[in-house]
Amino acid sequence: MDFEEKTLHREPIFDGHIIKVAVDQVELPNGLGQARRELVFHNGAVAVLAVTPENKIILVKQYRKAIEKISYEIPAGKLEIGENGSEESAALRELEEETGYTGQLELIHEFYTALGFCNEKIKLFQAKQLKKVPNPRPQDEDEVLELLEFSYSECMELVRTGSIQDAKTIIALQYYALNKGGE
Amino acid sequence: MDFEEKTLHREPIFDGHIIKVAVDQVELPNGLGQARRELVFHNGAVAVLAVTPENKIILVKQYRKAIEKISYEIPAGKLEIGENGSEESAALRELEEETGYTGQLELIHEFYTALGFCNEKIKLFQAKQLKKVPNPRPQDEDEVLELLEFSYSECMELVRTGSIQDAKTIIALQYYALNKGGE
Repeated sequence: MDFEEKTLHREPIFDGHIIKVAVDQVELPNGLGQARRELVFHNGAVAVLAVTPENKIILVKQYRKAIEKISYEIPAGKLEIGENGSEESAALRELEEETGYTGQLELIHEFYTALGFCNEKIKLFQAKQLKKVPNPRPQDEDEVLELLEFSYSECMELVRTGSIQDAKTIIALQYYALNKGGE
Repeated sequence: MDFEEKTLHREPIFDGHIIKVAVDQVELPNGLGQARRELVFHNGAVAVLAVTPENKIILVKQYRKAIEKISYEIPAGKLEIGENGSEESAALRELEEETGYTGQLELIHEFYTALGFCNEKIKLFQAKQLKKVPNPRPQDEDEVLELLEFSYSECMELVRTGSIQDAKTIIALQYYALNKGGE
């Protein structure tokens, strides 16, 4: 069985700072005809599961305009253009900017967040041997963040109450539970 | 500390069949000025962790145009407009269309896939007591799917080799491992 969809035509819709949008007309495999694909292109992101020496998981509280809600998430940030291939340094930068910590990174998973229509890929790291940075880089100017530290069971309570509804954060918490045995 | 970003102006960019795109100009809280938010709106989706009586996890192999790759994922589908609030029946429909099975659903997690810019929310269910449907509803005409059944350890091998790089599928596999103890 053939799976590939060949692009017959691409219509560019939007060329933004964060996303690009296009509509492709594709030829379905196996003579099944044509279909329309609405596509969002994103440069990718990094995220960090950071656990303090006291076994607290660092979360960032922030407002997310796309969902018009406050969200609790692990530290994360978009890759800048040309930063593919140096995701580790991007993750260390985000960790320092958002939390004031640095550490040793290990890759946990890389995954596409919404591959039905979007190519955003997140590289999720765990930061070990966390250390406070004396004079950390400042946060991005267009973000209002509050830094919080929670035990694993407090995090799972935030999942139950709906304060954590973020896919990358749920992946990080489940990874923590599978590899640390919770508390 | 105040977090909310007030919308000063919304510019509609694209009104598609699957997504809508807009650019908001927002007022940051705490007198920090203004910022631009590129936003993608999506009607939401459902996904199903379906485990056969033989402890095999049902995966769907399909081509994903957004990433130009073949992907292995748990069965899933978009909500139709007006289907919010009846996610269970949507999940049963997708399960039947994609796998020919029906079952008893339990909600595992609900999460936003990419809330930095997109409001897509997935309700992830587990289907228990799977039964073959005698004359299942046919698949969508614009999808070419292959149905596969894998043990948990075979699924984790697909994660390691990069055939599974889909956030919702990783969340479902981690949940399975946390709640079933693997194999």
